[in-house]
Amino acid sequence: MTPTITAFERSPDRGKGQARDMRVRWALEEVRQPYDVRLLSFRQMKEPAHLALQPFGQIPTYEEDDLVLFETGAIVLHIAERHPGLLPQDINARARAISWMFCAVNTIEAPILELQVAKFAEANESRAAQRMPLVKDRIRDRLGPLSTRLGDAEWLDGGFSAGDVMMVTVLRRLNVSGLLEEYPNLAAYVARGEARPAFKRAYEAQFAVFKATEDE
Amino acid sequence: MTPTITAFERSPDRGKGQARDMRVRWALEEVRQPYDVRLLSFRQMKEPAHLALQPFGQIPTYEEDDLVLFETGAIVLHIAERHPGLLPQDINARARAISWMFCAVNTIEAPILELQVAKFAEANESRAAQRMPLVKDRIRDRLGPLSTRLGDAEWLDGGFSAGDVMMVTVLRRLNVSGLLEEYPNLAAYVARGEARPAFKRAYEAQFAVFKATEDE
Repeated sequence: MTPTITAFERSPDRGKGQARDMRVRWALEEVRQPYDVRLLSFRQMKEPAHLALQPFGQIPTYEEDDLVLFETGAIVLHIAERHPGLLPQDINARARAISWMFCAVNTIEAPILELQVAKFAEANESRAAQRMPLVKDRIRDRLGPLSTRLGDAEWLDGGFSAGDVMMVTVLRRLNVSGLLEEYPNLAAYVARGEARPAFKRAYEAQFAVFKATEDE
Repeated sequence: MTPTITAFERSPDRGKGQARDMRVRWALEEVRQPYDVRLLSFRQMKEPAHLALQPFGQIPTYEEDDLVLFETGAIVLHIAERHPGLLPQDINARARAISWMFCAVNTIEAPILELQVAKFAEANESRAAQRMPLVKDRIRDRLGPLSTRLGDAEWLDGGFSAGDVMMVTVLRRLNVSGLLEEYPNLAAYVARGEARPAFKRAYEAQFAVFKATEDE
């Protein structure tokens, strides 16, 4: 059965592909798996029907027959386990690719989420501006070692994997902060991800949703 | 070969079992897998030998023959895939257990890390105290839905799984904040985890390290 994912009816990023459905769309495109999308308003995301699928009222979810999943890491891993192309055959390399998936959503994404909180949720507080240098330094504490580890490699560990899907999309959340540009090899890494045909198809699909709702 | 993990030589939590090696110790105890521990000083954690294993200079790592892993989620998943007892047989239930692993380290742990940052890294700043209510509310935004989803169930999804190993240990990081106690079913859930014989063995093992270094 064709899986169904959920996504924002009106994404707060105005079609920049920074919402988390992008990770799942990209993974599905890499393995050439068609999928359906159910768009949700902010109101619908907090209603019981969606909370039954996603306890925290977020997107995306993934439904396939009687399986319901949330958490993009788990969804991308599920896709990668069932279709060739996103995890290495070698058992150790496979475990390392999964390490990078967890690294993306925990070690790297946690301080990036804090930046977004500082910018938006606490934006009215003058102290948010004072904190910003501290918040940015904590992101640099992560990007520096990541940049060192990547070096001049194309992907995080050998060939392109689900670990790169997660890491590239997490790093893209830095957006216009200027932080990514301080690490040219990380910026080039993200650009390599964005240049993949599967990424482009996923990006276009989510952008089409933004365009359709913008015109309403 | 017996796997080797790394842990703090002197854990900042003074033996409360809140350092991340606890997750790996507990998982190994659940599947009755013996392991060796290499203790690291804070200086050693930032030296090239350890950075080659863990790019961010953290603990724990996991070494087994020529496999090196970091990120507790990935290590616990690796253990759970190779030994029975931490993942359901049913393929859909297995995917859902992995969802809870990612949920623990991303959705739940991210705001908890922010609380620790607000308490320690920014503790000299008077504005940290002003921010605290906002930081705590973001944790409540996660604990509330988690409490609702758990309801009066014993574990997150059917039988005890690697998802519970991760969630219980992440929730334990709330420690003396008082936040966990606002959700009695979550506090009882953590207590059930702590009552498992495997948890107790893991706890005693890390506590023995603390006692040994405390007496020096």
